[in-house]
Formats: sequence, structure tokens, C-alpha cells
Amino acid sequence: MATKSHEKSLKDLFVHALKDIYYAENAIVKALPKVIEKAKHEHLKNALTAHLEETRGHVGRLEDVFGELSLKPTSVRCEAIEGILKEGEEILSDFGASPAGDAGIIFACQAVEHYEINRYGTLVAWAKELKLAAVGKMLKATLDEEYMADDKLTKLAESSENREGIVRSAAHAA
Amino acid sequence: MATKSHEKSLKDLFVHALKDIYYAENAIVKALPKVIEKAKHEHLKNALTAHLEETRGHVGRLEDVFGELSLKPTSVRCEAIEGILKEGEEILSDFGASPAGDAGIIFACQAVEHYEINRYGTLVAWAKELKLAAVGKMLKATLDEEYMADDKLTKLAESSENREGIVRSAAHAA
Repeated sequence: MATKSHEKSLKDLFVHALKDIYYAENAIVKALPKVIEKAKHEHLKNALTAHLEETRGHVGRLEDVFGELSLKPTSVRCEAIEGILKEGEEILSDFGASPAGDAGIIFACQAVEHYEINRYGTLVAWAKELKLAAVGKMLKATLDEEYMADDKLTKLAESSENREGIVRSAAHAA
Repeated sequence: MATKSHEKSLKDLFVHALKDIYYAENAIVKALPKVIEKAKHEHLKNALTAHLEETRGHVGRLEDVFGELSLKPTSVRCEAIEGILKEGEEILSDFGASPAGDAGIIFACQAVEHYEINRYGTLVAWAKELKLAAVGKMLKATLDEEYMADDKLTKLAESSENREGIVRSAAHAA
């Protein structure tokens, strides 16, 4: 029987958030190949390809988290990631073929990364509060990888070498 | 005449992103009062009320940014914020009346803050690349306020005093 609304606890919210991010990770696995295809700069293409592999790993790790909690891995539709990915598709469609295409891809992908960093950050904090140490450690491993992926995108956008290829070349086309 | 897709530059992407965040800030101004109403902890209610006022200021500041660029303030529908706010509403409806309600509110609001931090962070970097110093300074002022708002929410969730009120009490109800 479903828990009544007024009886719901942090544990219920934690499980809800797990189902939400499980949906999100699967949606990202589906969305990334189209983005990789549109990326022009080789370093960006490689970074996104590596992150797709990493994201498949995050799906598997979440399945282990559900297992650790004796739950079947299930999803709840994550409206946030749906909106973020839809916005990303629009940017790709409007800017993908332009000199600003790769800057737009980084812009769209960092919105995804920041969403995930926020979600996993909170899940790690809640796992600690709920004394779920093993689960917390697994979620922290994914959080660290999301931070690294975001950092890599920032460096690709900003480093002097790649600015020539990505943000600077787009600015010069202005 | 609209710029053709393959001619679009970083400046076009920058203006698109401004219109997107202008839509988002206005949507947040509309959404926050319902959230404030549902918040139980007094400190959380006060923090969100202060942030609503700040958000109204961000809308005005964006209008000044458009003015600085000799553009009329206009919006493009921001699918990301629509999704993030929709997810927030669902969490409020599922958990709002429960002991985990305030933890859920912080969870939903931090997704909004992280989206904005990501967007304004990129806008500030692009303004620099496009040599729009005055506009960059204005966007940076909002970015700093978004960071502070996010930090305030983290402290409310984590500080020992408020954990009694927010995250810890929700955990104890588990």
C-alpha cells in the first residue's frame, strides 16, 4: 500500500529522488549520441563519448543502489531532465550548424551536469542522515564523476587552446 | 530578418540565452509564492521570501541588460525551467504535507538555483569573450546572489540547528 502523503519521511523522499535520477540517467544515455554526432571539435566529441560510457556506468550503479536497499530499480518521470534535454535539442536545432554550435552544446550539457550534481549532492547528504553508508559511498562516486565531467566541459570552453576552436571562434564570427 | 542557422554566432547564442533566463526568472517569480506558502520552518519561509524579492530584482536587472544592448526585453520559452518547476510542484504535492516537506522544498529550490548558476556563469564568460564589460558586470551581480541563495539553502538543510527542524526531523520520521 502506498504511504499516505502526511506520513512520508525523508526515506520516502530519498527513494523518490533515486527513481527520478534513474529516469534522468537513462534519458541522458538516449540523448547523448545525437549530441555527439553534432559536435564539431574533436576534443568535445571525445569528452562526450567518454561521458556517455560513464553515464551507462551510473545507470548500473543506481541499479546496485536499489539492490542494496532491497528495491527493484524503478523510474518516475523526471520532468526536470525532460525540460533540460528538450531545451538542449532546441539549441542544437537552432545553433548546431553554426559557428556557435559547440558553444551551444557545452551550454546544454552543463545544464544537465549541474542538475545531476545538485541531485547526487543532496542524495549523498540524505544517505548520511539516513545512515545508509554503503549507498552513500556509491552515490558519492557518481557525484565525483559528474563534477569531473562538468569541469572538463568548462576547460574545453575556456582553455586558450580550445577557445580557438570553441568559444573564441564563435565570438570572432560575431 | 532572422539570422540563418549556419550564420549564427556566439552573440546570437548569448542573446538567446538572455531571453531564456528572462523567461525563467519571470516563471520563478510566479512559482515562489506557492512554495513559500507550503514551507513550514520559519527560517526557510524567510529565506524564500527574501529570495522572491531578489528574483524580482534579477528580472529588472535583465531588462537593464537588454537596454544596454539596445534590445527590447523579450522571452523565449525556457523548457528547462518549466520542467524543473513542474518537478518541484510534484514534490510539493507528494511531500508538502509530510515531515519531509521542507527537505523536499529545499531539494526543488536548489535545482532551480543550480540551473540559474550554470546559466549566469556561462553568460558572464560569454560577455567577457564578446567584450561586453558593463553587461558582464550586471550578470555577475546576479550570479553572486544566486550563489548566496543556494548556499543559504544548503546551510538551512545542514546546520545542526536547522537539521533539527528540516532534514534531521524528516530522517527521524523514517
